[in-house]
Amino acid sequence: MPLPPLLLAIGNHQEEVVETLLQVGRFLIIFLAARTLAELMVRLELPTILGELVAGVIIGVSGFHLILPPEAHAQLNHGLLALVGSLADVTPEVVQDIYQETFPNLKAVSQLGLYALLFLTGLESELDELVAVGVQATTVAVTGVVLPFALGTAGLVFLFDVPLFPAIFAGAAMTATSIGITASVFGELKFLKTREGQTVIGAAVLDDILGIVILAVVVALAGGGSFSLGPILKLVMAALVFVAAALFLSRTAAPAFDWVLDQLRAPGEVVVAGFVVLTLCCFAAQAIGLEAALGAFAAGLILSASRHTEAIQETVKPLVALFATVFFVLIGTAMDLSVLNPFDPDNRQGLVLAAFLLVVAIAGKVAAGWSYWSKEKTNRLVVGLGMMPRGEVGLIFLGLGSQAGILTPALEAAILLMVIGTTFLAPILLRLVLSRQGALVDQPS
Amino acid sequence: MPLPPLLLAIGNHQEEVVETLLQVGRFLIIFLAARTLAELMVRLELPTILGELVAGVIIGVSGFHLILPPEAHAQLNHGLLALVGSLADVTPEVVQDIYQETFPNLKAVSQLGLYALLFLTGLESELDELVAVGVQATTVAVTGVVLPFALGTAGLVFLFDVPLFPAIFAGAAMTATSIGITASVFGELKFLKTREGQTVIGAAVLDDILGIVILAVVVALAGGGSFSLGPILKLVMAALVFVAAALFLSRTAAPAFDWVLDQLRAPGEVVVAGFVVLTLCCFAAQAIGLEAALGAFAAGLILSASRHTEAIQETVKPLVALFATVFFVLIGTAMDLSVLNPFDPDNRQGLVLAAFLLVVAIAGKVAAGWSYWSKEKTNRLVVGLGMMPRGEVGLIFLGLGSQAGILTPALEAAILLMVIGTTFLAPILLRLVLSRQGALVDQPS
Repeated sequence: MPLPPLLLAIGNHQEEVVETLLQVGRFLIIFLAARTLAELMVRLELPTILGELVAGVIIGVSGFHLILPPEAHAQLNHGLLALVGSLADVTPEVVQDIYQETFPNLKAVSQLGLYALLFLTGLESELDELVAVGVQATTVAVTGVVLPFALGTAGLVFLFDVPLFPAIFAGAAMTATSIGITASVFGELKFLKTREGQTVIGAAVLDDILGIVILAVVVALAGGGSFSLGPILKLVMAALVFVAAALFLSRTAAPAFDWVLDQLRAPGEVVVAGFVVLTLCCFAAQAIGLEAALGAFAAGLILSASRHTEAIQETVKPLVALFATVFFVLIGTAMDLSVLNPFDPDNRQGLVLAAFLLVVAIAGKVAAGWSYWSKEKTNRLVVGLGMMPRGEVGLIFLGLGSQAGILTPALEAAILLMVIGTTFLAPILLRLVLSRQGALVDQPS
Repeated sequence: MPLPPLLLAIGNHQEEVVETLLQVGRFLIIFLAARTLAELMVRLELPTILGELVAGVIIGVSGFHLILPPEAHAQLNHGLLALVGSLADVTPEVVQDIYQETFPNLKAVSQLGLYALLFLTGLESELDELVAVGVQATTVAVTGVVLPFALGTAGLVFLFDVPLFPAIFAGAAMTATSIGITASVFGELKFLKTREGQTVIGAAVLDDILGIVILAVVVALAGGGSFSLGPILKLVMAALVFVAAALFLSRTAAPAFDWVLDQLRAPGEVVVAGFVVLTLCCFAAQAIGLEAALGAFAAGLILSASRHTEAIQETVKPLVALFATVFFVLIGTAMDLSVLNPFDPDNRQGLVLAAFLLVVAIAGKVAAGWSYWSKEKTNRLVVGLGMMPRGEVGLIFLGLGSQAGILTPALEAAILLMVIGTTFLAPILLRLVLSRQGALVDQPS
């Protein structure tokens, strides 16, 4: 029970009032902004995720400073601080402190949203189809990693005289694929179960695993001298074991799950049992050095063969609608678009570098769509575009690089622009290509 | 993307690994424990919430120390710390620190669960029925506040020689009703829509409002001398305005909501629109000095007249199943049952006081069931028992008192036991009374 402003006398209960107001108020701002923009996107026949990203930009560090990750080191919206301060009878400075302190709560909820989204993506995947396209997906993933990395690094070094190590780092940032964004767009356009959809999802999962290995290598290089192959081989082993275990369990574990579910009698059994498998797989993936999000996808894949898979999907959808939205909006809030302004002379070098990186980033992933051999006719452009958005994964690479002080401001801005460009262009281009194809109904609902 | 253990070189990413492991691991522990106990309770024909509370006790401060609020100042389970530490390659001390730091995330999620539960309770309420029983509910609420407060305070002062101020505080703690527990039990037993159910829910809401006013008075008294009537009158006014606005909007706002919902075309519109109303009402309630949870109930009541109310209920249920469970388990984790041990001489005075408080706490609320006049035949015992659980509200009173250093250890233990006793007895007794009545189907599902 958060307490009313009167109760300052004992303890710090005013703080709880501010906490609750901020907690609830942040959700309100996020949902109002995201929903407004999502509705606009639907009317423009664009994927709603684009609206969520744009909503984030509008309320975030590039816009009204209403939702601001502490890492942004920017000043929060004065109106918001003053409003909450006056409601709770504290100074705006106190509100600002509590805002920063409680921001991790919002991030934790958004993380839940990402897990829920990947869980749903796994549930909606066709295991047999995923295995059938395994070779193609692997080819796409590897090509989509090698091409942008090689072209990006070489271009930066030879065309722009960037020193080798920052160039390698930028190249590594270009290998990422945001499986969340891809899954969201394909899911909304009802394209997940197609051959192309499964190829992209499979490739994005593998790309995520490759990304972790690449990061480990780059960071080991950054450590200087002390490069040792052991931990990296261990990570590669862990990844292989993980994929094998996920495939094995998705063939065998569903009947056991169904049996357990049939024994359960307390209400809410479907959602809780699903959530237990989800958290178990997230824990396992993280424990062996991979990402929890990969575990979430594996959990969905494992339960996709369950008799209850549709019931689980129904219970997961509200979680996705609420919390994955928070996740995508937060990505948008962290994007600082001021580096885009060409009238600021400081930005020009970054813009030139960015144009180069963006072209390589798009070309490299699109080319990956043509990299595999297949008897079946598939839409290779869709596959390439599906691999394109760097999204939150690109931002994490960027964050690591700037934290380590490896990148010049111009290169940092260029990577950010490459991430923004691919993230925003991918849903737009995918939608264009898919509707031209007539593969879509007029209004997704 | 939380990063693998390798990446310690740059920044503090090991910390993120530990965070993710703890975050996901805590959910896993909570759901495994809660579900196991809930299944047991269903087979014993007891409400599942009792299982959730007991699960909390088992994994919390009285049990395995796996889920431990930082306020408990107890040592976390060594096995858990060692396991996570070895997985993430850090010391158990680091894990402990991150555990404490990230615990608010879990609390924030549990708070969402409470809001979702009260939202659902509001959605399932019958406004007309609630208004029809308004006078009875008010009588029950007032009697259920006055009797335990007066008897408790007087008894402590005259029978046990407790000084006036601590006695008043203990008396105030006895006025609480945990609307969450009551709503959960009635909801599960499909008793919410009955006359008794609506009387209790209405009375519990009013009791919550009265509780805030009482707390304000007690705290003002604690401030000593500086007692001023102004802020308390303001709070009473705010409460009246809030109830009036909620009733007015629930008669008028649903058509507007339905119209807006009909215009929305992006997917997930029902759950998002419902959530926007929910957060708006939570914010409004907290902003005028009441509780956000009251706003959540009002939001449900407002939307209970919507054409989409059943669709909203369906989307809210998974949130309740997951996060309200976390809320109730956390209540259990905070209960320190060691004060129950009669072999420890330090506990004896507390146990005697506790026995007295428990009798008054039960008698006072049960008597409230007989306090109103009604032409209709109602089960007054059910009404009284429904008002009985003190739950989290009682714990908050207790927390305030011990924070302020007002209470002796014996009195503190006695209040805790009174809270535990009423919280655990209410679901058991309600279930017994309701099934004897034959008002229930054999297995709730």
